[in-house]
Amino acid sequence: MAKVGFIGAGKIGQTIAYSAMVSGAVDEAVIYDIIPELPEKYEHELRHAFATRGIKLEVLGTNSLDDVSGMDIIVISAGKPRKPGMSRRDLFVDNAKIMIDLGNKLPAKNPGAIYLMVANPVDMMASVFMKYSKQFTISAGDQVETMRMRSFIAKKLKLPVSAVDGFVGGEHGEDAVVLWSTVKIKGQPVDKYNVNKDEVTDYVKKIPGEIIRVIGGTTWGPGTIIADIIKAFALNENRVMSIATPREYEKEIIHVSAPTVVGSSIGPSLETLLDEKDRWSLNASMKDFYEVYKDNLKQLEQTMKA
Amino acid sequence: MAKVGFIGAGKIGQTIAYSAMVSGAVDEAVIYDIIPELPEKYEHELRHAFATRGIKLEVLGTNSLDDVSGMDIIVISAGKPRKPGMSRRDLFVDNAKIMIDLGNKLPAKNPGAIYLMVANPVDMMASVFMKYSKQFTISAGDQVETMRMRSFIAKKLKLPVSAVDGFVGGEHGEDAVVLWSTVKIKGQPVDKYNVNKDEVTDYVKKIPGEIIRVIGGTTWGPGTIIADIIKAFALNENRVMSIATPREYEKEIIHVSAPTVVGSSIGPSLETLLDEKDRWSLNASMKDFYEVYKDNLKQLEQTMKA
Amino acid sequence: MAKVGFIGAGKIGQTIAYSAMVSGAVDEAVIYDIIPELPEKYEHELRHAFATRGIKLEVLGTNSLDDVSGMDIIVISAGKPRKPGMSRRDLFVDNAKIMIDLGNKLPAKNPGAIYLMVANPVDMMASVFMKYSKQFTISAGDQVETMRMRSFIAKKLKLPVSAVDGFVGGEHGEDAVVLWSTVKIKGQPVDKYNVNKDEVTDYVKKIPGEIIRVIGGTTWGPGTIIADIIKAFALNENRVMSIATPREYEKEIIHVSAPTVVGSSIGPSLETLLDEKDRWSLNASMKDFYEVYKDNLKQLEQTMKA
Amino acid sequence: MAKVGFIGAGKIGQTIAYSAMVSGAVDEAVIYDIIPELPEKYEHELRHAFATRGIKLEVLGTNSLDDVSGMDIIVISAGKPRKPGMSRRDLFVDNAKIMIDLGNKLPAKNPGAIYLMVANPVDMMASVFMKYSKQFTISAGDQVETMRMRSFIAKKLKLPVSAVDGFVGGEHGEDAVVLWSTVKIKGQPVDKYNVNKDEVTDYVKKIPGEIIRVIGGTTWGPGTIIADIIKAFALNENRVMSIATPREYEKEIIHVSAPTVVGSSIGPSLETLLDEKDRWSLNASMKDFYEVYKDNLKQLEQTMKA
Repeated sequence: MAKVGFIGAGKIGQTIAYSAMVSGAVDEAVIYDIIPELPEKYEHELRHAFATRGIKLEVLGTNSLDDVSGMDIIVISAGKPRKPGMSRRDLFVDNAKIMIDLGNKLPAKNPGAIYLMVANPVDMMASVFMKYSKQFTISAGDQVETMRMRSFIAKKLKLPVSAVDGFVGGEHGEDAVVLWSTVKIKGQPVDKYNVNKDEVTDYVKKIPGEIIRVIGGTTWGPGTIIADIIKAFALNENRVMSIATPREYEKEIIHVSAPTVVGSSIGPSLETLLDEKDRWSLNASMKDFYEVYKDNLKQLEQTMKA
Repeated sequence: MAKVGFIGAGKIGQTIAYSAMVSGAVDEAVIYDIIPELPEKYEHELRHAFATRGIKLEVLGTNSLDDVSGMDIIVISAGKPRKPGMSRRDLFVDNAKIMIDLGNKLPAKNPGAIYLMVANPVDMMASVFMKYSKQFTISAGDQVETMRMRSFIAKKLKLPVSAVDGFVGGEHGEDAVVLWSTVKIKGQPVDKYNVNKDEVTDYVKKIPGEIIRVIGGTTWGPGTIIADIIKAFALNENRVMSIATPREYEKEIIHVSAPTVVGSSIGPSLETLLDEKDRWSLNASMKDFYEVYKDNLKQLEQTMKA
Repeated sequence: MAKVGFIGAGKIGQTIAYSAMVSGAVDEAVIYDIIPELPEKYEHELRHAFATRGIKLEVLGTNSLDDVSGMDIIVISAGKPRKPGMSRRDLFVDNAKIMIDLGNKLPAKNPGAIYLMVANPVDMMASVFMKYSKQFTISAGDQVETMRMRSFIAKKLKLPVSAVDGFVGGEHGEDAVVLWSTVKIKGQPVDKYNVNKDEVTDYVKKIPGEIIRVIGGTTWGPGTIIADIIKAFALNENRVMSIATPREYEKEIIHVSAPTVVGSSIGPSLETLLDEKDRWSLNASMKDFYEVYKDNLKQLEQTMKA
Repeated sequence: MAKVGFIGAGKIGQTIAYSAMVSGAVDEAVIYDIIPELPEKYEHELRHAFATRGIKLEVLGTNSLDDVSGMDIIVISAGKPRKPGMSRRDLFVDNAKIMIDLGNKLPAKNPGAIYLMVANPVDMMASVFMKYSKQFTISAGDQVETMRMRSFIAKKLKLPVSAVDGFVGGEHGEDAVVLWSTVKIKGQPVDKYNVNKDEVTDYVKKIPGEIIRVIGGTTWGPGTIIADIIKAFALNENRVMSIATPREYEKEIIHVSAPTVVGSSIGPSLETLLDEKDRWSLNASMKDFYEVYKDNLKQLEQTMKA
């Protein structure tokens, strides 16, 4: 079990925290948000939930970042959402400033903690947080896409979801790629089954938008999946998950997802075990990531100087 | 495990359904809502969540009430919220019409099912649903208040929540009463501890309003607690919970909460085991309930004639 | 969660402890046995099991009763089994001495603890332990028979076991009685189904002997069921279970099972809610128990004087 | 969830099956043993346990191998234990004959099933079963040693067991080797902590003998750990576990443990990600395994001709 700090108590932050707590991964939690009273009221809700389960867990909702202290892992979902008319680069700059600020404040009171980034653009925010804080940071990356891919194929083939294995990698979002060499159905290569690969890729890219359009945000899927990343760390489950861990690229630390062992130690990545095509896809992702990231960093630095 | 129908996929309906499903109480679920695409998109979210847990569970989100068929228990959270300027009686009338409509449609395809009411005013909606549908109906009643009471006392006394036992009864909401004869702390009567009873009652009454003011609705508390009612039924746990079961009062079926055994059979109520004062409180609740209910029913009947 | 002491690490003691620990009811455990090295080696086994689950739980296997200290509940499975040619009264006397010895030693270091008796003859040992130690003691009583009854009916009717509700009461063993007024199938009275009551009673009485004959002892059934009694206490689940709580009969404390609410406080008993026939059965059980118990106590006192 | 066949209902078989079933990995189970009445009585015990948990699971205990049909995974714990004076080679021959017999009978009724070997000598039995049955077979291998290693280091360092990561590999038993390059403590290389490596290796080798000497067999450790292998497969958890998967060595299929991804598809092995020293250890293990195995096979073939 782990002491977990949650930075951000919006819808997704609340769902991740709830799901992690009721699944037994957490023995102490501090939930921080900037909105007055929000974390404190959320704490009440959690306490009511714990009562019916007999859950014994120290939990604190707070508006003071100083209360986030002595944690093993800190999950960052704080950040602004993209508004209409706003470019991705503008979103990067706005949220990067939040990350730099958090990165200045959190490490002193949380020696040895690792950081799990959830705020968007998630992989770049992980890289920014790590660049400025010098703390070991991972991104939830494509583990959500991974589960969406498995879920879609299982429903199509009318199989239990546990029958479908495999991973999605690359940068989280539009550019994520299904790592087809890893996809197995009942232990068999995907090509033995009638799977329309384009349809799968299409689903993985479009379903979050569809959910957001109708419900206003994705919560239960990412909430549960990211809670399981926390659980794999906290209970040392050694689960292979498609998260983004830091890697050097042209002397810059970048975050791009590949199947990676998640336990109380993070890694290794299974990238070298992929087939050539999938490795090529990952390399292309890194290059793309790096270029956009460098460009965004420049913009950020200009803004900060100003 | 049970086949569970969820009528209503709003925030609270979603939270109850999610919490019941991930805790292993459900082996088939149908989620209905009138809002186009909402249940279907929620189904996608659930499928993504099930993928990471390997949960095998047939789930369908639908806009067609006909799909709710062959269920063991049907949880009704559908209904309108009270709008500013609207009287409680108006809310009763609006939601009662929804219940009558559901009561006309659901029973034919769900023989032997029991109904768990969650929509507000929850106890009266249970009575209305049962009156018109002739189906066995229970109300989630005061089980949420029960857990809020335990949670508050535990936090005050700095004890694990499992150390605090006891129940809240009477009508859900403003008129709920702590059944003090049932409250035990570490197995001892409450009076052996320094507990300010007025403060406890106050908390139970005011905390939902406080949460709603800040977060916009209560979800995690009621969601988990009501999921546990479903679980107690589905796994036949025989848990004593303060829910409202039907009882006759002046030839009318009414719903007022008392500690009640919840398993695959519902009951008995432990009302006769309470002390005199607490029994008196429950009786007063029933009388109050009956009078307001009769008045509301009259209004409803007039509206329906019109 | 509770701090649990286990007195006795034989087959049944091991199974209860394991089952309670892996189901999340325990946050600290001390396991005592008189056999050298046994509790310590069992501790190793448990630690290996906890490693794969990431369970964080302080556990100690010990040959020193002094290590059982600060517990919330103490589960006693220590005692001799009945040997061929030995009368029940002789078994009573032998094991009663062990209970008196434990009752002299355990309370001082475990203020406020409750005691759960598992050693046979289980109800009488609870009474003896309580008589001499003056500590609140319950007996696992007929909760095991209760589950055997449900299991048998469910299998006969080809229903999931959760569809069958109801309790067995009276003295544990040959004289246990099915409390038919409590038996419900899918929420309906048992008489609506084709259930051969004699066959049910017969099964409940004979199946433990059959299992012992083939396997050498009953473990998985009682182990899991008694672990759930601990869990209901530790997580304050308020489950109704057919355990034996102390009651006065002719100025003597005796233990006879009836459906009873088990949470962090134990009780009330639901005895007065049974129908007349079932209440009569329980009363007959108490009388029988009392007479044999008095006789056994006399024998015990004579032996102790000698 | 998976349909699981258990071949062998001795102590370890019972413990694996129980642990897998109560942890939600199994939705149908058939338990076979050659001893009359044993599987049937064990089935009763399980049914009693399921009753208290509301577990819905089809379970059959049987003396007829034909009932083991339509399974997803078959766990083989059947086999003789080594008797005093018996050589390892004699044990190999005796149990290999059982495996060949099972391998002749099981596949026809279980198309697509995978086989998990638990009977000793476990890795060689996996190789024999696969050689003769042509079915995909894995050995529980060193996952038990892996957890013993973590457990020992955690206790020594007074850390929660989830803080210690890493694997043991090579042939199960005396020749297992700690893969030190994989051992991490709180995410840091083992050398940053004061760990006596010889003491660790010694513990891993000697603790099973110590437990057997005092208790008569190891059950709770291997039972839970092997149940988790089944669970990782059944729920597609993608856990990295040190099990032995088939690999070709000098044209013979052999089984030697290395960290391997276990989900509904088995693999890949992480062997190539180990450091040179650990890879060298594994290679030495394979060579040793192969030589003994070839020798044992020869003996087996001679015996079968006779």
